[in-house]
Amino acid sequence: MTLLEAVTGPSDVRSLPASALPALAGEIRRFLVDRVTRAGGHLGPNLGVVELTIAIHRVFDSPHDVVLFDTGHQAYVHKVLTGRAGAFDTLRRAGGLSGYPSAAESPHDVIENSHASTALSYADGFARGLRLRGSRRRVVVVVGDGALTGGMAWEALNNLAGARHPVVVALNDNGRSYAPTVGGLAAHLAELRAGRRPALFEALGLAYLGPVDGHDVAEVEHALARAAELGRPVVVHCVTRKGEGHPPAERDRADHLHSVSPAGARGAPTWTDVFGAEIAALGAARPDLVCLTAAMRGPTGLDTFAARFPDRLFDVGIAEQHAVTSAAGLALAGLHPVVAVYATFLSRALDQVLLDVALRRLPVTFVLDRAGVTGPDGPSHHGMWDASLLPVVPGLRLAAPRDCASLRELLREAVDVADGPTAVRYPKAEAGDDIPALRRVGRHDVLRAEPDAAGLIIAVGPMAGPCLDAADELAGHGVPVTVVDPRWTAPLDPELVKLAAGHRLVLAVEDTTAPGALGGRLAQALATEGSPARVGTFALPPRFLPHGTRADILRAHGLDAAGIATAVLKRTGRRS
Amino acid sequence: MTLLEAVTGPSDVRSLPASALPALAGEIRRFLVDRVTRAGGHLGPNLGVVELTIAIHRVFDSPHDVVLFDTGHQAYVHKVLTGRAGAFDTLRRAGGLSGYPSAAESPHDVIENSHASTALSYADGFARGLRLRGSRRRVVVVVGDGALTGGMAWEALNNLAGARHPVVVALNDNGRSYAPTVGGLAAHLAELRAGRRPALFEALGLAYLGPVDGHDVAEVEHALARAAELGRPVVVHCVTRKGEGHPPAERDRADHLHSVSPAGARGAPTWTDVFGAEIAALGAARPDLVCLTAAMRGPTGLDTFAARFPDRLFDVGIAEQHAVTSAAGLALAGLHPVVAVYATFLSRALDQVLLDVALRRLPVTFVLDRAGVTGPDGPSHHGMWDASLLPVVPGLRLAAPRDCASLRELLREAVDVADGPTAVRYPKAEAGDDIPALRRVGRHDVLRAEPDAAGLIIAVGPMAGPCLDAADELAGHGVPVTVVDPRWTAPLDPELVKLAAGHRLVLAVEDTTAPGALGGRLAQALATEGSPARVGTFALPPRFLPHGTRADILRAHGLDAAGIATAVLKRTGRRS
Repeated sequence: MTLLEAVTGPSDVRSLPASALPALAGEIRRFLVDRVTRAGGHLGPNLGVVELTIAIHRVFDSPHDVVLFDTGHQAYVHKVLTGRAGAFDTLRRAGGLSGYPSAAESPHDVIENSHASTALSYADGFARGLRLRGSRRRVVVVVGDGALTGGMAWEALNNLAGARHPVVVALNDNGRSYAPTVGGLAAHLAELRAGRRPALFEALGLAYLGPVDGHDVAEVEHALARAAELGRPVVVHCVTRKGEGHPPAERDRADHLHSVSPAGARGAPTWTDVFGAEIAALGAARPDLVCLTAAMRGPTGLDTFAARFPDRLFDVGIAEQHAVTSAAGLALAGLHPVVAVYATFLSRALDQVLLDVALRRLPVTFVLDRAGVTGPDGPSHHGMWDASLLPVVPGLRLAAPRDCASLRELLREAVDVADGPTAVRYPKAEAGDDIPALRRVGRHDVLRAEPDAAGLIIAVGPMAGPCLDAADELAGHGVPVTVVDPRWTAPLDPELVKLAAGHRLVLAVEDTTAPGALGGRLAQALATEGSPARVGTFALPPRFLPHGTRADILRAHGLDAAGIATAVLKRTGRRS
Repeated sequence: MTLLEAVTGPSDVRSLPASALPALAGEIRRFLVDRVTRAGGHLGPNLGVVELTIAIHRVFDSPHDVVLFDTGHQAYVHKVLTGRAGAFDTLRRAGGLSGYPSAAESPHDVIENSHASTALSYADGFARGLRLRGSRRRVVVVVGDGALTGGMAWEALNNLAGARHPVVVALNDNGRSYAPTVGGLAAHLAELRAGRRPALFEALGLAYLGPVDGHDVAEVEHALARAAELGRPVVVHCVTRKGEGHPPAERDRADHLHSVSPAGARGAPTWTDVFGAEIAALGAARPDLVCLTAAMRGPTGLDTFAARFPDRLFDVGIAEQHAVTSAAGLALAGLHPVVAVYATFLSRALDQVLLDVALRRLPVTFVLDRAGVTGPDGPSHHGMWDASLLPVVPGLRLAAPRDCASLRELLREAVDVADGPTAVRYPKAEAGDDIPALRRVGRHDVLRAEPDAAGLIIAVGPMAGPCLDAADELAGHGVPVTVVDPRWTAPLDPELVKLAAGHRLVLAVEDTTAPGALGGRLAQALATEGSPARVGTFALPPRFLPHGTRADILRAHGLDAAGIATAVLKRTGRRS
């Protein structure tokens, strides 16, 4: 029996002699490499926190004590040590283990978080609450150096220092998030690692211990134990290496195998690839074009642009708010900024989009990758909100390309807009074959026209393919439908409103949640003008969706050809 | 002719001998006290930056150099010195001078900002852009110590330090925003003011000059000039006093006359007053109730609660993101947090509401003051977005009270919800008389019932009064209408959907922008189920609205009794 097999919970970790811990760490690493390489998931970050997580579970008594992991993808080791090793074969699969903490999985998971820089705020609130209730439960929170570039972390550190709660902050400093950590903070941490100037945290009023070797369990354990005794907020500076102990990850200079795809998963070009090539081409033609990323240069497809125009690519750290408002500053200086960000992260900067960009009608283009259902990253990563939120922003124009050609075209149209913000959204998926249009009317493309159509399908973005397949199927049932692609989903295209008003049955098919999306706005517009058209919206339900494959999740909600055809048949009374 | 009368622009300020500057400062103070006391507006902050602003305009050459003011309400002196003294009689009136920077007013106003902590990000972007374009224009930004508690400011400082742009940060440290500045930062600045430990900014890689007496023009001017020569980002620490030179403001210990109402403006109790009394009463009955504010304890009505339950009131600084997620932490610790915030500021923490609160179905109540049209603070302060954004949040219940009694009732219902977030929104206005209901059906109140109604008016929140008046007027025209108050506007009340489906004409009247608001969601629901009901939405247009009085702005958009009656008559064909 291996050491790992004998660990059924944190108390088993505490029972082990210190001398056994390096061997346990080795077993955990081999376990993670094996399982995560097969299933896909966050590998590098978890290889970096093996010893730190072991030490935490020896010093603190989870779940009585509260153990929080910022940017929850670094919680795999915690899952292994809290009785979930046996479930790793199901990692990130529908119904299986989540890639993030999940309260439904275990009492050891307190928060369910994947967006960075939030855990210190949870910790501050939790500690305030425990003090009020007279509880002596302790709070420890693991946060990466990258996450400290996010403003929320600063807000929380400021409050922790002011309230003087005994929260232990285990700073997992590996010098990077996806990308190397940027800015003055990164330089300061480098100074600290070199043993110089322990100033920043202490200046703010936090105790500071370290730096300690984050791969020496005994050293980390000792530091955490001392920290827990201080009775005040303290940063324990643990220096770790992402991908530690797995040579391919150690060698990978791009991101130390931050996240790996399941074996054999890589196929045809993705939407991200198409964007990456096109923005680089646009960069050559447009010297005023600059790109911003919040620590996601590679994942958002900006590597080629960065290589060709290094002085026009700005990585601002995990700082979406700053990305948006500094883009506004760049626009005021006469440039056209393109902010490339995952759709799920743009909600972090909505106020800035509204008031710092749109109020001044500044030409900033937001490129929203991972829009719609993303898949195995689950509820906090599905890009389900942007298509509801952005139409609220006055003057913002929102585009949803259906294929590679229209992504290229819409991106060019977007960066040509000079009097206000634009956004282009596309999913995490292969882009597939181009889908030709019959003609363009107003801003929309007609993909299939039926003179005596029983209905109109408005196929938003990547729903074009399934909608056309559904139209074929419907034709076979004697239900001809016209299919159009709105291309620009906000504001509403008057020609599209006119077209919809001429159909009794209109179905908007969207890879997003329904409130505020195209179908709802169209229904509202038609109702206001008294049209008898009946507009149905076929979109994701207004709730958080669990992880699974993109295809499975879309199918489960009827957003595939069969589901769309069925929906139309029901509405035409051909099927109950 | 006074010195001030001779100042028609910054070059006149630069031409003055240094010996004349204290007299100029005195004239500006008397001018501000006179004008702002009459018109209403931000007094204390501007009295504190008189010398600082004079010094900036002597060292920098606006508009060639870029002068930015964070939390734009501290730009009055800047307006006076850039040729707008003559317009101060129109301050914050419709068509008159804005209370914030306004590009439409002057080339000296570069950004239009009222939300705190954004200007450093604009500065970073602007400086990046100027460097790319080979420009030698300089960038100076005035930021308060309170604004540094906001995470965006940290994100920007981190980037400024990393990029090493020559941005001059004039830190206007008066120890407060509305309220005293909180947290470790406040303690650190106090140390700096005492001449100890210039550590925080330098640790981050920024140069630091100071502290300087912010009311000694020559000293500030000297420090800014030195800073501008450094060629790298530098914080010039200016110690100022809010309300300086105006004894009533100096004496006012609450907020140093941060913001004053026009003479004689105070009247009947406001919605804020009603909330303040009720939350204090609830606090006595519910020991698990805690309140959070982002540096707005007084303005959001929490003073009474704070006085009675000081250990259950948390001021987190200008840090809405942290307020929301630390509230999530408090909820996890078993408390029921109430986050009291202006509606316009909640968009700063939407991601946190979604993923940190709603995803875990945590019982947090958001109390949104200044929802809807606020009035003289203009486009960035109207609470026009929350009613569109919050219905997107799965499981969040959103209430809009119509009067004092229903505010009390809905607040109690909200804090009784244990399985997810709730929000209650109300305007900046007097609450008016209570409006009795005929009966309650589902979650909505029937305010006026007509058996043979020509239409149904859904009166959202404070629109109840004007809608009932409109119904009276319509009855006089032979057009009887039923009027209901939905009380809870999201999610949709099935009984309300059923009621609406039974009317040919439905008009939702809302003090918000239309996309995503109640009317649109109702139209979508009815369209999806194939109802012939025709749902109109009568709300604010989807654009930024200028400043003016709340009553005037509502009237201009038809949101008064006459406008509502006219809209119904048009839709019933009685008036074209």
